[in-house]
Amino acid sequence: MSEVYAVRRTRLRECCNAGGSAAALVSRPANVRYLAGTAPEGAVLLLGRTEDLLVCAGPPDDRSPRSHPDESLRVHVVPGIGGDAALAAADLAVGQGVDSLAVEEHHLTVTRHRAIHDAAPRLRLAGIGCAVEQLRVVKDEEEISCLRIGAEITDQALGELLESILVGRTERHLALELERRLVDHGADGPAFPTSVATGPNAGRPGHRPTDRRVEEGDFLSVCLGATYRGYRCEIGRTFVIGTAPADWQIELYDLVFSAQRAGRESLVPGAACRDVDRAARHVLDSAGYAEALPKLTGHGVGLEIDEDPQLTPAAMGKLDACVPVTVEPGVHLPGRGGVRIDDTLVVRPEADGGPELLTITTKELLAL
Amino acid sequence: MSEVYAVRRTRLRECCNAGGSAAALVSRPANVRYLAGTAPEGAVLLLGRTEDLLVCAGPPDDRSPRSHPDESLRVHVVPGIGGDAALAAADLAVGQGVDSLAVEEHHLTVTRHRAIHDAAPRLRLAGIGCAVEQLRVVKDEEEISCLRIGAEITDQALGELLESILVGRTERHLALELERRLVDHGADGPAFPTSVATGPNAGRPGHRPTDRRVEEGDFLSVCLGATYRGYRCEIGRTFVIGTAPADWQIELYDLVFSAQRAGRESLVPGAACRDVDRAARHVLDSAGYAEALPKLTGHGVGLEIDEDPQLTPAAMGKLDACVPVTVEPGVHLPGRGGVRIDDTLVVRPEADGGPELLTITTKELLAL
Repeated sequence: MSEVYAVRRTRLRECCNAGGSAAALVSRPANVRYLAGTAPEGAVLLLGRTEDLLVCAGPPDDRSPRSHPDESLRVHVVPGIGGDAALAAADLAVGQGVDSLAVEEHHLTVTRHRAIHDAAPRLRLAGIGCAVEQLRVVKDEEEISCLRIGAEITDQALGELLESILVGRTERHLALELERRLVDHGADGPAFPTSVATGPNAGRPGHRPTDRRVEEGDFLSVCLGATYRGYRCEIGRTFVIGTAPADWQIELYDLVFSAQRAGRESLVPGAACRDVDRAARHVLDSAGYAEALPKLTGHGVGLEIDEDPQLTPAAMGKLDACVPVTVEPGVHLPGRGGVRIDDTLVVRPEADGGPELLTITTKELLAL
Repeated sequence: MSEVYAVRRTRLRECCNAGGSAAALVSRPANVRYLAGTAPEGAVLLLGRTEDLLVCAGPPDDRSPRSHPDESLRVHVVPGIGGDAALAAADLAVGQGVDSLAVEEHHLTVTRHRAIHDAAPRLRLAGIGCAVEQLRVVKDEEEISCLRIGAEITDQALGELLESILVGRTERHLALELERRLVDHGADGPAFPTSVATGPNAGRPGHRPTDRRVEEGDFLSVCLGATYRGYRCEIGRTFVIGTAPADWQIELYDLVFSAQRAGRESLVPGAACRDVDRAARHVLDSAGYAEALPKLTGHGVGLEIDEDPQLTPAAMGKLDACVPVTVEPGVHLPGRGGVRIDDTLVVRPEADGGPELLTITTKELLAL
């Protein structure tokens, strides 16, 4: 297993060397985990000239998310109480004869960057940009399998909720129950705060659950996901409460469903990210909902819930095979509520059957 | 209510002016909320030369924590999809004739700092250090009242759990149930991930709940807290499962209890933070547990769960009245488990009755 991490570090080392730095300091926790298999709190990874080191601020405790720690990587614990791993790593780099260290300028604060400079003034600090984030975009089958299991857990949790009585319960309670069920079925925890939105709240992106109770005739939209071995997936569904949806509800639902399907169907290797966004957005746009549209139609998922690529009108870049993304268009009508349908899928070539749908809960409009 | 925020901003403005900057850009979310009453995602606060502005990256949604939004503050929404509030704020500062802008260098990344510089190259960027964090240390009675209500909610949730059957349940389930109860009783949510630790895990600081089940004879330690109107408190207790604690359990419990009491009793206005730490630490130290000691004995709480002051051996500074802190010594014996006792208290002068204990759940050693 630990070979995977060594291979990832070799790829990053090549990026750094190409940029003129013999060594790199990785500080963003998800990036540390990607390259080391574990990311204890406050730890950084030194990709050194002679040796790679996981530099930990204190004795490892079990706050740290752990998948498969990399036994080939030496762990250096900074002595004393509350040591600073980044400063210690800069020092270790100097000890290895490094003169230029690439750092994650998009993660280090100005204050910490300056402290590293002050601690090792002869060390030239360069940037590695989002090199690790870029490596993380295309997943291997092991990573996809974690996402797939996470999606199964998520489908199970949602399925069980749908079988229970919903009317009269609050958004907060439903959200907490979903999170409990995720953990019941083996998730590390929720991938992000579970959103349950009823009535006028339904369809709002990122709605935080309130004390509003589910009522007959409501739209009910939920968005949740499990973290499994560090990997985070996402599903969103909208339902109607009661026996018969109103005409406007059916109409709006069908529209968002069409938009979401258009987005899903455009997920092919080589497709421009903005074209996927446009495919979904165009459906809503031409039905007159241009104003109500969210910023994005979807995004990558993995060790973080919001990764590259971004499916937005301004996105650059193309999709590759083995990139997991969400497709999640929605419409929210102020005062009335709305619809949101969200899946996690993996981009796959046509020859392999096209996009792999990880979240398989039905997208029929269920009346609950 | 909004006067409070205006007064806070005036105090910050005085700090900035003293540092030679006519304006400040506040980006750390808890600091934005402290000064504006609300902190929509991605929003920053511009403390301008002619006018203060809450600069939001997009239309306000309800992801944002909200207490009492400040109606006296003008809200500027950055147009377009996914706009950058910090860049827009720098631009607005230039428009106000500002030539030196103080920024939060401990929060801004190197990349964002550079982007601000590139967007407004004539603007001199200075640092305001942790000026807002320092203003936040001493709380007003309104803030303390939020903490007090949060502590009541926390005590209730914990009290209910103690009345239920615990043997055979997993750490994860107990943690989720506690979090559900916090929300039931009116919390915004948990103040931090609830920790439930049984048997050999008991007493570990920051233990993440596992699937281990509660067994007869176990130590059971829990650490939880409610967020109420943005304010976060913390309680930690250790119990014994079964009818009679073993001798070593009673001994260890009494020791940690003495250490925690020593810490609490040293909370007086004017006390050095390191002396509070030493009071608690000394009790454990002289009983031979020097190795097993945690990094800190306690810390401030408020809009964040871990604020200044820090109660550590190296801490500088003294306690003021109306500063809420935790006192949370513990001992963990690898393989055996341990004890942790944690309260949230407000420093008060002797004349007002001494430290105000917010978390009032009993600290007797209960056998459950």
